[in-house]
Amino acid sequence: MTNQQTELPISLTSDNIHRIDFSQWTPQELATLIENRSKNERIQIFKVLSPPKGVEAFSFLPLSTQKDILNSLPARQAAKLLNDLFPDDRTALLEELPSGVVSQFIQLLTPEEKALTLKLLSYPEGSVGRLMTPDYVAIKKNWTVREVLDYVRKYGHDRETVNVLYVIDDHGVLLDDIRIRELLFASLDAYVGDLTDNKFIALSVTADDETAINIFRKNDRTVLPVIDSQGILLGIVTIDDILQVAEEEDTEDIQMIGGTEALDEPYMQTSLPALIQKRVGWLVILFIGEMLTASALGFFEEEIAKAVVLALFIPLIISSGGNSGSQASTLIIRAMALREIGIKDWFRIMRREIITGFCLGLALGLIGFFRITLWSLFSDLYGAHWFLVALTVSLSILAVVVWGTLSGAMMPLFLKKCGFDPATSSTPFIATLVDVTGLIIYFSIASVILYGTLL
Amino acid sequence: MTNQQTELPISLTSDNIHRIDFSQWTPQELATLIENRSKNERIQIFKVLSPPKGVEAFSFLPLSTQKDILNSLPARQAAKLLNDLFPDDRTALLEELPSGVVSQFIQLLTPEEKALTLKLLSYPEGSVGRLMTPDYVAIKKNWTVREVLDYVRKYGHDRETVNVLYVIDDHGVLLDDIRIRELLFASLDAYVGDLTDNKFIALSVTADDETAINIFRKNDRTVLPVIDSQGILLGIVTIDDILQVAEEEDTEDIQMIGGTEALDEPYMQTSLPALIQKRVGWLVILFIGEMLTASALGFFEEEIAKAVVLALFIPLIISSGGNSGSQASTLIIRAMALREIGIKDWFRIMRREIITGFCLGLALGLIGFFRITLWSLFSDLYGAHWFLVALTVSLSILAVVVWGTLSGAMMPLFLKKCGFDPATSSTPFIATLVDVTGLIIYFSIASVILYGTLL
Repeated sequence: MTNQQTELPISLTSDNIHRIDFSQWTPQELATLIENRSKNERIQIFKVLSPPKGVEAFSFLPLSTQKDILNSLPARQAAKLLNDLFPDDRTALLEELPSGVVSQFIQLLTPEEKALTLKLLSYPEGSVGRLMTPDYVAIKKNWTVREVLDYVRKYGHDRETVNVLYVIDDHGVLLDDIRIRELLFASLDAYVGDLTDNKFIALSVTADDETAINIFRKNDRTVLPVIDSQGILLGIVTIDDILQVAEEEDTEDIQMIGGTEALDEPYMQTSLPALIQKRVGWLVILFIGEMLTASALGFFEEEIAKAVVLALFIPLIISSGGNSGSQASTLIIRAMALREIGIKDWFRIMRREIITGFCLGLALGLIGFFRITLWSLFSDLYGAHWFLVALTVSLSILAVVVWGTLSGAMMPLFLKKCGFDPATSSTPFIATLVDVTGLIIYFSIASVILYGTLL
Repeated sequence: MTNQQTELPISLTSDNIHRIDFSQWTPQELATLIENRSKNERIQIFKVLSPPKGVEAFSFLPLSTQKDILNSLPARQAAKLLNDLFPDDRTALLEELPSGVVSQFIQLLTPEEKALTLKLLSYPEGSVGRLMTPDYVAIKKNWTVREVLDYVRKYGHDRETVNVLYVIDDHGVLLDDIRIRELLFASLDAYVGDLTDNKFIALSVTADDETAINIFRKNDRTVLPVIDSQGILLGIVTIDDILQVAEEEDTEDIQMIGGTEALDEPYMQTSLPALIQKRVGWLVILFIGEMLTASALGFFEEEIAKAVVLALFIPLIISSGGNSGSQASTLIIRAMALREIGIKDWFRIMRREIITGFCLGLALGLIGFFRITLWSLFSDLYGAHWFLVALTVSLSILAVVVWGTLSGAMMPLFLKKCGFDPATSSTPFIATLVDVTGLIIYFSIASVILYGTLL
């Protein structure tokens, strides 16, 4: 919905770039332009952009592109760019760089921005401290609305938002938040103190990302203040950063559910070696785990030799356990991420999942029984003892589905309890666990039911 | 971080509820209180809340609780509540109700709200039209800043946001958006027309949720205007609704990746029969698909009888294909949801995934080869032809992993192409597909390599 009409040269060089008038471009348009150009052209563009334009466009670029540009710009220009970024954007970018490069860049900042950056980076990764920006507008109770509006007019320009103002006392302790609209509706001579209700929602600086996301979701806010344990206002977090972080968290969860290490960059930007490296680790671990199925089956080799028919149902039985385990673990992982359930609910979850697993196992077991019976009416594939085979297979399916469902539901809670991310490769891990144990269940049931006939 | 100190009776009845002073409570506090009370107590609370308090608290409740309350309130009170809700909140709530109930409630609305509600509900589910609210502030180019601020003071109270104002022409066509801060920084006598740059980003009313989410993510906005194909301003969408919708979309994707139909309510609020019903469908479909493995193996029964050792590696081989397929499909599903890739990229994706699959398959195949060789040095489990067995297994793993990776990556693109959601049970579906085809690959390779020795 923008109306950019400029005709651009196919290749941007130091010669032709000066002829382009970027003054009418919005930061988003510039970001799109920069994104689609080569490294050299990007540098050319940044050279001619007037300072506020350049940094604004830069902040609209994805982190991976920002990183590329920062690395390819001359040191002085990179430092200028970093200096002018909003502190929260800068922290997010520096997080992406190797620590050696970070300290180099930090040396290039002005003393003021350097102190600020070091402070923000001192909060643990994944905490609210890393997301906040100190660019808020703080006001006092004894100011009039007129004074506040004058103050905003004077100092509001370089603040990330003026939609909400923060009332603090002389020690910097947060007393209340006021939306600018409330000031617009109030008389100019009213005091800030008359408009406050001393009720506010704030994030703790040490809270983790997920807590922040959930507080934003529950409270319909676009910006929240951040305080320390003394209640002192340290900064604000805006919802656009939260939307970004929520997306990253969900991406990580989804990738881990799929049995990959979280990619740090978009799929297409991830180089092939990096893509392989992120995937091979868990695949090898799962493969080594799955080797236990060969060992388990080696143990039952004699039974298989006697009753080859048992081998035919191996994939069916273990995959039923794997599928029901995947269902349970993804449901629980997601519900935990949304804070709908926690470790304390383990007993209720266990009860629900045992009942669910039993019903699901019964359904699949009956279908399996019916299938073997039906086949046996028309073919001799399952032999004379087809009824016992059908019984063995259906009971095994029932047992394996209950077991898969239960362990799928409990694994994320267990991982969380041990301090890991509940999504850590839970789903394929469950599948592997259930494959190995499922075989043992299957052959144990078979050895009881088929004793004296096939075995 | 709120300081509610009121002592509440353990049970809220029509007798004691009048003695509680709710005037100091914030809507969020009231929502938390309501959420944790029984059905009867909830009705009591809504009876005594003054109208704006009640509706504000209501709008902070989760949809499932809103639904319960609406169904248990007397019709007149329910109608009042619906009338007072912001139109976007109302649409979201009505979407959750059965259509018979919806038309009943709509009849209870005032003619004005009724017309508006019917209009919003006429947009397709999952479109921007369902998310928008018409409660914006529209201004004209020839107004002065002073006039605008007076207008906001007079009419801004019942608007969802006044942080951004919308400049329209006499036909209602959107010309620009202006943040209220720009007005605060400007002289009171300046004209709106002097402050506009005629550049704005708008959502099309027919665009789908995911497009809207991506536009919000890319543009760092907290509110965006919605226009029709003529450019006429119809409403606004605020980012808090987008955060909600993004969460729902991700939840659906994750649940579908896990092989469940998307639950419509939080895990713990979903009744056991509903939970089972959402899970049994796909589980049965996958089970029936997986039955083909029994058929495929039935076809190879003779080979298994001759070389039981082949049966030992069945789970290892098919699970390697399943795991690598899961990785590929979840990576692609997520990248598609984030609009990083689309159907048009299929060829590049295919190339990347074939190379990746080959490297991953090679790694696993080598480990498998090494494992069988090592075992054979110390035991006789794999017989005299262990080398040929090792070769068969490793080559099968390589082939199955390449095949699993490729089909895992292509399946979401194919589903999308056919008009389905790419996440629709892709991951377990891939596992099932790869299980069946993997067996055929395995026994085909075996019949070539082991011909004349074991087979």
